[in-house]
Amino acid sequence: MGLIGAGRIGKIHIENLLLKIPNVNLKIVADIKISQELKLWAAEIGVPKLTSDAFEVINDPEIDVVVICSSTDTHTRFIQEAAKQKKHIFCEKPIDIDIKRIRETLSIVKESGIKLMIGFNRRFDRNFMRCHESVVSSQIGEPHIIKITSRDPAPPPISYIKVSGGIFLDMTIHDWDMARFQAGSEVDEVYAAGAVLIDQDIGNAGDIDTAVAVLKFKNGAFGIIDNTRQAVYGYDQRVEVFGSKGCVVADNEAVNTVRIYTAECTNIDKIPYFFMERYMESYLTEVKYFFECLRENIDPKPNGEDGLQNVLVALAAQKSYEENRPVKISEVEKY
Amino acid sequence: MGLIGAGRIGKIHIENLLLKIPNVNLKIVADIKISQELKLWAAEIGVPKLTSDAFEVINDPEIDVVVICSSTDTHTRFIQEAAKQKKHIFCEKPIDIDIKRIRETLSIVKESGIKLMIGFNRRFDRNFMRCHESVVSSQIGEPHIIKITSRDPAPPPISYIKVSGGIFLDMTIHDWDMARFQAGSEVDEVYAAGAVLIDQDIGNAGDIDTAVAVLKFKNGAFGIIDNTRQAVYGYDQRVEVFGSKGCVVADNEAVNTVRIYTAECTNIDKIPYFFMERYMESYLTEVKYFFECLRENIDPKPNGEDGLQNVLVALAAQKSYEENRPVKISEVEKY
Amino acid sequence: MGLIGAGRIGKIHIENLLLKIPNVNLKIVADIKISQELKLWAAEIGVPKLTSDAFEVINDPEIDVVVICSSTDTHTRFIQEAAKQKKHIFCEKPIDIDIKRIRETLSIVKESGIKLMIGFNRRFDRNFMRCHESVVSSQIGEPHIIKITSRDPAPPPISYIKVSGGIFLDMTIHDWDMARFQAGSEVDEVYAAGAVLIDQDIGNAGDIDTAVAVLKFKNGAFGIIDNTRQAVYGYDQRVEVFGSKGCVVADNEAVNTVRIYTAECTNIDKIPYFFMERYMESYLTEVKYFFECLRENIDPKPNGEDGLQNVLVALAAQKSYEENRPVKISEVEKY
Amino acid sequence: MGLIGAGRIGKIHIENLLLKIPNVNLKIVADIKISQELKLWAAEIGVPKLTSDAFEVINDPEIDVVVICSSTDTHTRFIQEAAKQKKHIFCEKPIDIDIKRIRETLSIVKESGIKLMIGFNRRFDRNFMRCHESVVSSQIGEPHIIKITSRDPAPPPISYIKVSGGIFLDMTIHDWDMARFQAGSEVDEVYAAGAVLIDQDIGNAGDIDTAVAVLKFKNGAFGIIDNTRQAVYGYDQRVEVFGSKGCVVADNEAVNTVRIYTAECTNIDKIPYFFMERYMESYLTEVKYFFECLRENIDPKPNGEDGLQNVLVALAAQKSYEENRPVKISEVEKY
Repeated sequence: MGLIGAGRIGKIHIENLLLKIPNVNLKIVADIKISQELKLWAAEIGVPKLTSDAFEVINDPEIDVVVICSSTDTHTRFIQEAAKQKKHIFCEKPIDIDIKRIRETLSIVKESGIKLMIGFNRRFDRNFMRCHESVVSSQIGEPHIIKITSRDPAPPPISYIKVSGGIFLDMTIHDWDMARFQAGSEVDEVYAAGAVLIDQDIGNAGDIDTAVAVLKFKNGAFGIIDNTRQAVYGYDQRVEVFGSKGCVVADNEAVNTVRIYTAECTNIDKIPYFFMERYMESYLTEVKYFFECLRENIDPKPNGEDGLQNVLVALAAQKSYEENRPVKISEVEKY
Repeated sequence: MGLIGAGRIGKIHIENLLLKIPNVNLKIVADIKISQELKLWAAEIGVPKLTSDAFEVINDPEIDVVVICSSTDTHTRFIQEAAKQKKHIFCEKPIDIDIKRIRETLSIVKESGIKLMIGFNRRFDRNFMRCHESVVSSQIGEPHIIKITSRDPAPPPISYIKVSGGIFLDMTIHDWDMARFQAGSEVDEVYAAGAVLIDQDIGNAGDIDTAVAVLKFKNGAFGIIDNTRQAVYGYDQRVEVFGSKGCVVADNEAVNTVRIYTAECTNIDKIPYFFMERYMESYLTEVKYFFECLRENIDPKPNGEDGLQNVLVALAAQKSYEENRPVKISEVEKY
Repeated sequence: MGLIGAGRIGKIHIENLLLKIPNVNLKIVADIKISQELKLWAAEIGVPKLTSDAFEVINDPEIDVVVICSSTDTHTRFIQEAAKQKKHIFCEKPIDIDIKRIRETLSIVKESGIKLMIGFNRRFDRNFMRCHESVVSSQIGEPHIIKITSRDPAPPPISYIKVSGGIFLDMTIHDWDMARFQAGSEVDEVYAAGAVLIDQDIGNAGDIDTAVAVLKFKNGAFGIIDNTRQAVYGYDQRVEVFGSKGCVVADNEAVNTVRIYTAECTNIDKIPYFFMERYMESYLTEVKYFFECLRENIDPKPNGEDGLQNVLVALAAQKSYEENRPVKISEVEKY
Repeated sequence: MGLIGAGRIGKIHIENLLLKIPNVNLKIVADIKISQELKLWAAEIGVPKLTSDAFEVINDPEIDVVVICSSTDTHTRFIQEAAKQKKHIFCEKPIDIDIKRIRETLSIVKESGIKLMIGFNRRFDRNFMRCHESVVSSQIGEPHIIKITSRDPAPPPISYIKVSGGIFLDMTIHDWDMARFQAGSEVDEVYAAGAVLIDQDIGNAGDIDTAVAVLKFKNGAFGIIDNTRQAVYGYDQRVEVFGSKGCVVADNEAVNTVRIYTAECTNIDKIPYFFMERYMESYLTEVKYFFECLRENIDPKPNGEDGLQNVLVALAAQKSYEENRPVKISEVEKY
């Protein structure tokens, strides 16, 4: 296999692929910029070959699987080319932010018969998986309300905000996916509200930093999501599914199980700071699952259709926020 | 003092007033129906006098304070009459469901100079008070998101549903008040969605049993509320306030602190079943506070204006649900 | 009924008997010192009659039940006299600290046929009751290890320490009873160690302030207890029973369910300060149970034999501490 | 570096050394039995060379560091030889069970000037480290009571029990170390009690399966430990340190943060099953720390003296159990 894009997420995948997953051979890694630092890192970790040309990966006949971790604007091109070369593909989220381009790409993928998985890693978090299991196993009955708390510890740089596509496509996209995953149904309508409450520079860049959304699912369930770009106490990631026979709640991970009782109060250490701490394990579980699917000839999930649906919900949410009214997914599907 | 309406809530107040609050003399209790059962209960608990005529309470010159626990449709009349008689008033929620009648009543109360408190008892729950303290003391900074989970264990009888005024006026009214209490601001706009997911009979009665709502507060904060008429695991009552400097979370009360570890799993006993268990203490704290306000000549909160605002939000929520769009409070204020 | 001894515990019982338990008539309260303050308190709460002569209570033919809350040195005399007058008796712990006197008293009680209950109120704490239930119902199988954490928030005055009988008779006595209650078996041997780690004045008064003990029960189970006179973070009261099929753990009560997350750490409020906060409910449950036993003609537990056994364990623990060796209960039984 | 003994623990170390620790080169692994399975595992994981002769590791001039994971009876011989060859040594616990042999070995280590660390990995558990930090930083003041719960999920095979040296040397040895680690002091006296409550075959093999112990430390603190070979609910590993200014409690790790609320009760998944799940991370932290010590020329802890002290406490505990009396460490030091 080969990998394209050795940025932050790319490196996580490379480490997992090289060190923690047996029977997978990473042959080559492509990145548009082969810095000295990257060379050193690659040598130490044992990457066999580096290239600045993604097509060296895509066109290599020895390579069966391509992992795409490059910037979003390159995804559809690389997916299309790799699919044509009959490579199986694992691509980071989102596929793209243009519905038409996503549709074309998925159509090519379909024709090629290869397997495509999109990297919504939170589905592989042990806590959210456990929630999902209790829903699927009907332990809590029919899902009625899916409630997601998703708060970053600190905003990204303004330069990033400007090219991010907006909070609904950049940050909430994980939550659209999580809500759909837990609900076991597609979104019918979304209402989104938001504001700049954290940093006016984010507003000046045309985005918001605080958002809440209500989803109506086709199976009748509701989704409730709240986002903020800055929770000073850490990376707050919780999921709750209320159903006809019970409720399952996944709380934050703790950095330890220690309580310190003093004359003033009882203290618990802060929750994990950010996604590198919280979701590290999920990236490994995710990629393991992907290769297991390839070996067992199972269609992996979340797939291209999931990637598409999440972008549709994001676009509907953006429209809802702008027009201050609930928006049906069907309204944005025509794009 | 005297009390009108010896139903479920009335009896809680009578017990608290007779047994647990010193320096308060309950002289007379009025109820439209003096049953044999009520007589026995009153005798045992030590109620000095029972009457079926509320005006015996309101017009008694020895009585300084009237506690009104009768049905909602009688509230404004009793408040107006008691105010004219210069009695201080504690009235159960809601004041009324008609904005015009509430306004007239509050105007009479204002002229009379008496003190009026409305029984939104949840403000006096030890957990939600502690949340409020941490907001007021700026421990968590400016509030950005107020998140309320409010779920009943089982629906009331359909006969009650029919006269309840609908879920937003009957059940969510507590949550409108809680959200306003924690936000420290008035609601500007509300979006409400809902459905019949529990019991079709509730739908047939013209109501819904599951609801979610998003509030926009004048100070920029958002509120998120979810309600259901049936949480099979018990009375689920949680509040969370996220702010610029932190987050405060009030979880459900436990019936005990015991964990049982077995070969299968770890078990915790169910949360308290309903409001009698969960909020019993808050009723006492509430009434103690009211009498303290009277003695110290402090204007008690929540007051008539709170009562009014909560009904306004409920009406806007109902309109939002019916018309499937966000509704400004100003739209319903003109009623 | 009548009550002797209107000190701290006596007042709790009086309030419960007067205000919270139906069908019980408290006729008279005796205290050796009828202060002005006591008179005012009694009048306000509704005590019908005060006397400085305990025998006015014991000899009153209208009185069926005597509650004894006077100082320990008066217990056996009052129990004996009340038993002779065929009054049922509820007596605060400990019965006495002299084994011979306890035995004589229990013998008189037995002859009289009246019911005697000893006030080990912690058995009626909702958490420890729940532990006991899970043991009795065999949810955790055969008990192997009973582990008790019992720590006071602050030491009593040195004047009290001097007459207390020592930590094992004064403080650990509750834990001997709790261990026996949970184990469902009598103690065979005890090993106790201790030291002065908190306050040298306690050492100068001939006592210790920190103690640990290991119990061997006749059914093979072990008990482990730790005590300290000063836990600066509050009244630390926990019980754990490990058994062949599981483990049940009762944690401290919380004063609220609130967590406050900030940039520094997560805070929880301190646990309840002392027994008035923690065990208030248990005093009521205890006395209700006692009167229920009288009505249903059930022998109440903990009874005189429990009172005796707890003192035996305390004496054995004291001997173990002094001689630095495990001591069999049979060694002190002969006293 | 080289490693001797590729059993269960040896393999954990090999994986950590090969895959997770940079700048460490594992050259050779010795095991008395080079099975086909071991060969395959070694090839896959990337072990450069396998040998059945431990002295190929010890005598290799290119090797600076020897990790000893072979059976206990080989430890002192390998330590002595490696020390003579001026290799730094990481040795699994216990060094030996014979005090004289340990002393001789430590004396040779001392003369050689090399660094020796003993693998009491639990000191590197994130929770117990956090406890230790709060003790060392004086957050909880002077330690008064160290309380350790240490329960295995299931007994080892009887064949293992027979050669284990008994529960105090085999299982409690970790707890002696933990207690000393948290107390920051050496043990002065130990009282141990125990019984066969789980499996009579363990008794027939001359051992016990349930044990409790009280330690007296030289700084005045007390230790309390309870052990069982079978906690059916999982691997129960908790530590608590009570001090003059507070208390720190490390609870079990959870396998996830999920709670499932149903009409019956609230469920939490079982705690991790055994040490592979619970302490995996601690093995890595431990070995990283060891190599950091070597690089920074710091004497690593726990060292040979810790290894010795833990065995002394174990022997004193065994004697205490056999003679049913507290035993001073000085009584067994002369061995």
